[in-house]
Amino acid sequence: MTAITFPALGIIGGTGKLGSALARRWVAAGHDVHIGSRDSTHAAEIAARIADDTGRTIGSGSNLDVAMRTQLLVVTVPFAAQADTLREIRDAARGKIVVDTTVPLMPPRVMRVQLPAEGSAAMIAQAVLGNDARLVTAFHSVAAHKLATDLDIACDVMVFSDDKEARRSVAQLADAAGLRGVEAGPLANSVAAEALTSVLIFINKHYSVDGAGIEFTGHLSAPVA
Amino acid sequence: MTAITFPALGIIGGTGKLGSALARRWVAAGHDVHIGSRDSTHAAEIAARIADDTGRTIGSGSNLDVAMRTQLLVVTVPFAAQADTLREIRDAARGKIVVDTTVPLMPPRVMRVQLPAEGSAAMIAQAVLGNDARLVTAFHSVAAHKLATDLDIACDVMVFSDDKEARRSVAQLADAAGLRGVEAGPLANSVAAEALTSVLIFINKHYSVDGAGIEFTGHLSAPVA
Repeated sequence: MTAITFPALGIIGGTGKLGSALARRWVAAGHDVHIGSRDSTHAAEIAARIADDTGRTIGSGSNLDVAMRTQLLVVTVPFAAQADTLREIRDAARGKIVVDTTVPLMPPRVMRVQLPAEGSAAMIAQAVLGNDARLVTAFHSVAAHKLATDLDIACDVMVFSDDKEARRSVAQLADAAGLRGVEAGPLANSVAAEALTSVLIFINKHYSVDGAGIEFTGHLSAPVA
Repeated sequence: MTAITFPALGIIGGTGKLGSALARRWVAAGHDVHIGSRDSTHAAEIAARIADDTGRTIGSGSNLDVAMRTQLLVVTVPFAAQADTLREIRDAARGKIVVDTTVPLMPPRVMRVQLPAEGSAAMIAQAVLGNDARLVTAFHSVAAHKLATDLDIACDVMVFSDDKEARRSVAQLADAAGLRGVEAGPLANSVAAEALTSVLIFINKHYSVDGAGIEFTGHLSAPVA
């Protein structure tokens, strides 16, 4: 893995479990990270905690502020907040890579795949963002409580986009968080990772696993151009 | 893994790559296997080849004959033949476990997930079979050309059913083929494995992999009852 410098990373909804864990890992790896939240005071608290923990600086602000001041946005909000959040940052996201991590879980039946009428959370994101942003989806099935530690996580991250360059960048961003980013095809394929999340929740319960993930088998060579 | 005796296994559409490879492994493991096909002459040819190869006996016949004379049916036909094949064996399958392996691939764009209007191949199977059979889906993402060898395959098989006892039996049936059967939830979750197949085809091409599969990470204990 070669060292890669990413542009400023904005974590939209970055006070949640997934967002704050990703932020912490990217900060620790030396990247310029900014935590956004509906509540900028809460964003500042989480940022301060991560700064304390890692000894590095990290920015914070409202979701919109962070979206405006960063170049690569990672959206980590619950399904119920997805569309509204994307609408809020749409103008600020113009021309930027937006990584949507949304899984269409519908509590309380989270062990059962229940896909939205649009087909997937990726299709909802695309409908909201149109062609304004470079939409990528990823990080659907990472156990956030493991990501919040410094431990190695045996977990591949499927990365989907119709924009090949953006897809490759986000696979490298997953690598930078100590995971393995695997390019997994066009946005239409995102449904596979979204649906798999309910399967993983089922497996955790059924087999008493602490945060199951998946790994692709077979030797994955460098991507074929 | 404890030795388990399965009832007579009927492989419907068993002359294809997946069906014949599964049949060969189950025959080699000592089980009573019968190969069905629309063309019973072709079924007999494939059965003879497997018998030669393994030194064991194996039955054959038309799909309907095999469905009538066996107790656990594994349906391995292309998506385009799925509904007709299930209709043909429906009466013979009454009360039996039917394992549908169908992936809704729509050539030529097989690297792209294209789910059917019904939601998944599992939902189509359920609509055809109703409550007459004990429907399970599994074996979606096994590389058939690897399964056709005696090599160990690093590949988990997700097994879905609303019938828990049938689901557990089919997970053991996967074990008996030298794979690892993983119970992955209700039939509604089958879409995860079906969609994942296009992802695996994409990964095979993109990363020059010879038959990628997936493995679940984390220690899977004995299932929680």
